[in-house]
Amino acid sequence: MSTASNASMFSTPEMDSIFTISRQLQLMTRFEWALAAALEAHGIAETGAAAALVPFLNAEFVDLESLIADARKSGNLAIPFVHQLTSAVRSRSEPAARHIHFGATSQDVFDSALVLQLCEAGALVRYGLKALDAALERLAREQRNTIMAGRTWLQTGPPITLGLKVAGWLSAVRRHQKRFAEAEERALTLQFGGAVGTLAVLGEKGLAVSHTLAQTLELKEPDLPWHAHRDNLAELAADLGLLVGTLGKMARDVSLLMQTEVGEAAEPAGEGRGGSSTMPHKHNPVASAQILAAAARVPALVSTILGAMSQEHERGLGNWQAEWETIPDIYRLSAGALARAVEIADRLDVDRERMLVNLESNYGLAMSEAVSAALTGRVGRTQAHEWLQHASRQALAEKKQLLDVLLEMPQVREHFGETELKRLLDPENYLGSARQFIDRVLGADDEIR
Amino acid sequence: MSTASNASMFSTPEMDSIFTISRQLQLMTRFEWALAAALEAHGIAETGAAAALVPFLNAEFVDLESLIADARKSGNLAIPFVHQLTSAVRSRSEPAARHIHFGATSQDVFDSALVLQLCEAGALVRYGLKALDAALERLAREQRNTIMAGRTWLQTGPPITLGLKVAGWLSAVRRHQKRFAEAEERALTLQFGGAVGTLAVLGEKGLAVSHTLAQTLELKEPDLPWHAHRDNLAELAADLGLLVGTLGKMARDVSLLMQTEVGEAAEPAGEGRGGSSTMPHKHNPVASAQILAAAARVPALVSTILGAMSQEHERGLGNWQAEWETIPDIYRLSAGALARAVEIADRLDVDRERMLVNLESNYGLAMSEAVSAALTGRVGRTQAHEWLQHASRQALAEKKQLLDVLLEMPQVREHFGETELKRLLDPENYLGSARQFIDRVLGADDEIR
Amino acid sequence: MSTASNASMFSTPEMDSIFTISRQLQLMTRFEWALAAALEAHGIAETGAAAALVPFLNAEFVDLESLIADARKSGNLAIPFVHQLTSAVRSRSEPAARHIHFGATSQDVFDSALVLQLCEAGALVRYGLKALDAALERLAREQRNTIMAGRTWLQTGPPITLGLKVAGWLSAVRRHQKRFAEAEERALTLQFGGAVGTLAVLGEKGLAVSHTLAQTLELKEPDLPWHAHRDNLAELAADLGLLVGTLGKMARDVSLLMQTEVGEAAEPAGEGRGGSSTMPHKHNPVASAQILAAAARVPALVSTILGAMSQEHERGLGNWQAEWETIPDIYRLSAGALARAVEIADRLDVDRERMLVNLESNYGLAMSEAVSAALTGRVGRTQAHEWLQHASRQALAEKKQLLDVLLEMPQVREHFGETELKRLLDPENYLGSARQFIDRVLGADDEIR
Amino acid sequence: MSTASNASMFSTPEMDSIFTISRQLQLMTRFEWALAAALEAHGIAETGAAAALVPFLNAEFVDLESLIADARKSGNLAIPFVHQLTSAVRSRSEPAARHIHFGATSQDVFDSALVLQLCEAGALVRYGLKALDAALERLAREQRNTIMAGRTWLQTGPPITLGLKVAGWLSAVRRHQKRFAEAEERALTLQFGGAVGTLAVLGEKGLAVSHTLAQTLELKEPDLPWHAHRDNLAELAADLGLLVGTLGKMARDVSLLMQTEVGEAAEPAGEGRGGSSTMPHKHNPVASAQILAAAARVPALVSTILGAMSQEHERGLGNWQAEWETIPDIYRLSAGALARAVEIADRLDVDRERMLVNLESNYGLAMSEAVSAALTGRVGRTQAHEWLQHASRQALAEKKQLLDVLLEMPQVREHFGETELKRLLDPENYLGSARQFIDRVLGADDEIR
Repeated sequence: MSTASNASMFSTPEMDSIFTISRQLQLMTRFEWALAAALEAHGIAETGAAAALVPFLNAEFVDLESLIADARKSGNLAIPFVHQLTSAVRSRSEPAARHIHFGATSQDVFDSALVLQLCEAGALVRYGLKALDAALERLAREQRNTIMAGRTWLQTGPPITLGLKVAGWLSAVRRHQKRFAEAEERALTLQFGGAVGTLAVLGEKGLAVSHTLAQTLELKEPDLPWHAHRDNLAELAADLGLLVGTLGKMARDVSLLMQTEVGEAAEPAGEGRGGSSTMPHKHNPVASAQILAAAARVPALVSTILGAMSQEHERGLGNWQAEWETIPDIYRLSAGALARAVEIADRLDVDRERMLVNLESNYGLAMSEAVSAALTGRVGRTQAHEWLQHASRQALAEKKQLLDVLLEMPQVREHFGETELKRLLDPENYLGSARQFIDRVLGADDEIR
Repeated sequence: MSTASNASMFSTPEMDSIFTISRQLQLMTRFEWALAAALEAHGIAETGAAAALVPFLNAEFVDLESLIADARKSGNLAIPFVHQLTSAVRSRSEPAARHIHFGATSQDVFDSALVLQLCEAGALVRYGLKALDAALERLAREQRNTIMAGRTWLQTGPPITLGLKVAGWLSAVRRHQKRFAEAEERALTLQFGGAVGTLAVLGEKGLAVSHTLAQTLELKEPDLPWHAHRDNLAELAADLGLLVGTLGKMARDVSLLMQTEVGEAAEPAGEGRGGSSTMPHKHNPVASAQILAAAARVPALVSTILGAMSQEHERGLGNWQAEWETIPDIYRLSAGALARAVEIADRLDVDRERMLVNLESNYGLAMSEAVSAALTGRVGRTQAHEWLQHASRQALAEKKQLLDVLLEMPQVREHFGETELKRLLDPENYLGSARQFIDRVLGADDEIR
Repeated sequence: MSTASNASMFSTPEMDSIFTISRQLQLMTRFEWALAAALEAHGIAETGAAAALVPFLNAEFVDLESLIADARKSGNLAIPFVHQLTSAVRSRSEPAARHIHFGATSQDVFDSALVLQLCEAGALVRYGLKALDAALERLAREQRNTIMAGRTWLQTGPPITLGLKVAGWLSAVRRHQKRFAEAEERALTLQFGGAVGTLAVLGEKGLAVSHTLAQTLELKEPDLPWHAHRDNLAELAADLGLLVGTLGKMARDVSLLMQTEVGEAAEPAGEGRGGSSTMPHKHNPVASAQILAAAARVPALVSTILGAMSQEHERGLGNWQAEWETIPDIYRLSAGALARAVEIADRLDVDRERMLVNLESNYGLAMSEAVSAALTGRVGRTQAHEWLQHASRQALAEKKQLLDVLLEMPQVREHFGETELKRLLDPENYLGSARQFIDRVLGADDEIR
Repeated sequence: MSTASNASMFSTPEMDSIFTISRQLQLMTRFEWALAAALEAHGIAETGAAAALVPFLNAEFVDLESLIADARKSGNLAIPFVHQLTSAVRSRSEPAARHIHFGATSQDVFDSALVLQLCEAGALVRYGLKALDAALERLAREQRNTIMAGRTWLQTGPPITLGLKVAGWLSAVRRHQKRFAEAEERALTLQFGGAVGTLAVLGEKGLAVSHTLAQTLELKEPDLPWHAHRDNLAELAADLGLLVGTLGKMARDVSLLMQTEVGEAAEPAGEGRGGSSTMPHKHNPVASAQILAAAARVPALVSTILGAMSQEHERGLGNWQAEWETIPDIYRLSAGALARAVEIADRLDVDRERMLVNLESNYGLAMSEAVSAALTGRVGRTQAHEWLQHASRQALAEKKQLLDVLLEMPQVREHFGETELKRLLDPENYLGSARQFIDRVLGADDEIR
């Protein structure tokens, strides 16, 4: 059994498979192979050195148990890994083993393998973002005209449409796509600097070897090695923190709409989904719970990554190691939250009737602002606000509809007849620019793709 | 291969083995068995119901793959777990299966199993603390008189003894033992409340069943179920955060002392320990790095647990789930950091000669305060401080020993002859209450054990 | 105008007044006065040295502008403060000024003044906790029998009483009182160690002076100076983090109950309270918002304090400074949240009628578990759960009351007649041990006071 | 006296002056004035409405005490602010007061004023970044060839040049400039949506009024109001978190180089700078301490902002309020850290002689890799590494120079004579691509400006 009890609940199998030790070791081997190729190309390693590493790319040569035991002593996986790799290759070809890892330091192989993992992981994030974008765009179109109460400070207010709420989510998701692309553009670069970032082992061939190595791994080259400068990595982490924040906002909204007393929208149901071990009637917002859990965890993980940026001199102590499990956790939680958000967006169960009922409940008070706005031109904002505040309190105290209270207020009747008041209190007439905002988001589509 | 690539580097095998899904499922089964026994004792479940569960206590009945797939849908492990357990028991005895989980909710079994895990994990923490206490006490005694420079703001100052530094660590470790005991005393209680914390399913027998259940599991009973009140759990997390903070301080000190340019103390060396993949001469502070990584991570994890306390109503949404992986991570990192700290404390390699050399280097300026203190009675603190500040700057500028500069200052010579100045500048004569402080800590021993 | 725009909204005036620079400087002066008295008592300072400082205890001698400018350069307030104090005293009596600050380092005066501030601040916290305890106890008694829906995962479930919910808050508040007392007992100690914690300046009189100083300031003495060991301070911070977590849970509950669609309880209303600048009908949960803001901020501030524990050697660099504004912020936010919680607890506006209406709404499904529990003895838990799950779905699909659906299920009717079903579905009969739990909390009272 | 005791030490006076309540109220008034102008332009407000507000732009009409008292009750500053503003204007012109705040909600004025503050604050950040860029560029050029030890894991390794270290800082600072520009481009937009983000009060004129308002305030318009979508704000916070992380890395490096035992570089000295209240010889790294304090605090503050993104529905409860003091604190700490970093970069005091001494100390072991690299072509990397590891241990054990040990190793002598060994061990010959990396950073200059 795995050591991680609840892990898979908050991630996706695809993301989990990237951050296994086996994938990590494969990509570390891939780095050493590409380095051998570059060394060979520049006349440093023996001819055939790279080819000799090919059979080992699956990393099955690794004796994992001794690797981990040794890693505990040496302080990182790379040292015993290089040792095992060298032994394995040497047993087939002594010359090919001679220059393995030559010019590199353990952090080079470790970080470059991480970047290769992040390339794969980033593709999953981008794919999830696209799927969410598509699902939200569809939902925003479908619900463009679905009237529901707007809610502020958890209190019911004037109407919006569900499309507007969804357009808000969608607009943020598009910004996240842009941000993540900018961050990946900066961050996905080769790590290769040798012991102290000078490539001194390679003499005058450092930059040339580095260039070939980057090309082989299909990674960009940074200005200079970034062993102790983690801002690019940290930016990826922070961007995922921003993304999970938006997903948390979406899950918060859905879970609140799904409350028994609200009942306006629900996560998709299904066999075995959202039940309770004891209450037979339950339909729990399980996807929202998983997203909200991610939203409760990722900010702190990002703070660890930011706090760990103060790395000492050419290669740091402690803070580098603090990243090792934290960055994978951030990607895992982000992927899980994204997948759940797509599930919700794809099949949100909307109860339009209930939305209208809720909007009209509470004596119709949610519409009070509409009347106050209409009165402002006549008596000024302050006076209008006071009248409606008075009317609202009376409605609550006497358990009467706001309309009925207003009809009995002479100062209001002076300005509006019953027909006009009814028109003012009709939600359909009080949506302002909601649909235009939605269209602005839906139309903004082309710019980012 | 495991999914967790670097996990074992920051934990201990013992702690890891507690927070596996297999142990979790065993303890969940244990809860259901104890509940069956309690229900049986109070005439609710069938005779033999508890005995029928005994063969399942190893949790091997679980089909893990389908459990995890179902958990993703139901939102937690407990629902499919109860389902699988009930099926397994039913296949042997239908009556025994009838009341499985009766009266409980999924969070009851989940949280109580967590508390049972924390009992085991806490024992490891307490054991580690005791070992560290013993090692530090020994070290403090051994190094009681080892003179070294005190350092403030990373600058060399008047002398301390290494024993004083170690006594500072030890004193904190003792407070942590006390704190952790207080927190465990509060926190290790049964979770049993049913759907909404009223034990309504059990009618009038709720408290009686709860009492028997707690006794069977050897857990204390809380005042009332704590599904949405997580302060006790959070206190354990916070206490481990405090502990790791102290270990981080200790590791920070050791890693700074181990710098090539300081070289006063070192982590134990050994084959394969602290080497580099490229620099043959390296002896890296690997244990310190692992502790410092924990110290960079645990504070943020604690903040997640604190932030997750705002759980809704009778059982929360999202914040509860945020604890699931975070609490085990806190214990794992704490155990790993403790184990490394014990390694360091047990075999710290001290270079007393280098300590004296460093203290005397830099023109003897570290002792400047001793002269200024001696002058205060004669000319006042401000005047004395200014003279010595002047002398210090002159020593640096002219690359002369402070003693030589002072000997040439008439205003100083007016008060002190050469012999007296030499006596004042002798570190042995300027240890103040250092040894008494050490003895106070060593003597405080008895109170806490 | 003050620099802190929104500060007072999240604190209390009383707490704010403790963490002003003027109070800080007064307490720093108080430290220097008490030190002078101790030095005088032990024959080090001149007779009358302490008396000469008395006129300065109000700290009005400080030239704040130059103090702050100098503090920026010297890195802390204490250095220019000691300078200004010495000058001020010297202008009246040269001998009295001679030994000002003698034996102390700037962190001694800074930290000891902080501890004196924390004594005052802690009293406010304890007072707030007591007031909250009393208000919640009263509320729990009053609402002991007020039936309302329990809610899990934001879904309605079987009934609880409001008293049970309040007892949960109260029980946690009592644990916080205990925790905070334990932490204060450890933490409120003198800081006095001189440059590197040896009191070397005082020669053999260090401990004696320290003892007198502690007595004069009415502080306990620690085992040894704690300049770089911050676990006690951090424990206070963590304890306040735990407290604010519980207050956040309480505010979360209240704000959810106060939703327009729930309407079961409300913060006290009042002129100018909770209104909106645009919506005339609004009654916003402003106290809850302030508490929730604190609950969103304090966990991160605690993580800063925990992360800042890794302080270097005898006195650290950067991490100590990270505490300076963070600890006051934690106290301020805690005090503000406590004050708002007391307001809520004192005058929570409860709508018992609405509670019953909500519990019975949604086709009576909240009671489904009661029937499933009653059936378990007859057909086993799994079968009973399935029947009720089926009935619940049918009720929702056909918009029928659960009772009516059950009456038409022959497998149910086989076991229960209509009268029995009605009895089972009566919330009053399904409160389990709720009242006993409440009484256990109310009775636990005596132990902690 | 101010309430904030240590605030100014961690910020700059310029940044502090932006986040005062007086500036906030001025910008809130500015928003209301611009709104009046837009309403007037679109025929909603009375002619002259905007002009009537001009005399109030200095916000001196505000009765601060009652404002704060009322804000506590209403939950935010904006409600009593609008009330006071309306009263003030009305006392001069009733018609002009009629439409004040019309169409807006309190969060509109609050958030838009915040954005205006952030425009001013961002300019200070950009200015600071530019100054730091220039200073670091100059420093990197000056120190391009200054040889010093590279250091990894706090151990001395092969040489770098100080220019390379500085180029690493500079390269990061350039990325931060780009990131911050991208974030500001997204974030600095108008907030204007009315009660629930539909601008319903303005009927069909919502977008038109919004457009004019944005133009008047010189802010961009967002796709739709962002009351509960805080990703843009959070991105600014995260970007400052990244920046402070890099500054922390720089301060960490400087403070370590400034240790008495290292002494290779120092913060600028000066009267009253970095002294101690007790140790006359001290030259403390005070700027580094202030930067490191910021680096210890900002990550947690960022996590608060990220965690606060889950805001409910159209306008949230608690999480919005959590931003109010946190965002200003992030800007203040960032500005302070930037200012200190510029001070350091402008006048870093470099001791080139000491750098060489340190590099050559410890028996010359820092150069061991150079020999191992040279041997690799002959005997393979593993064999070469082992020989040098052996030689290094022998040097330490026998307190001999590495050169001398190597000269006595026949297996080494077989490949290299004394001259060659000396050449290999000369740091000047082992700088690899260091200078090319520096030049790459210095040359990259043009792209970003």
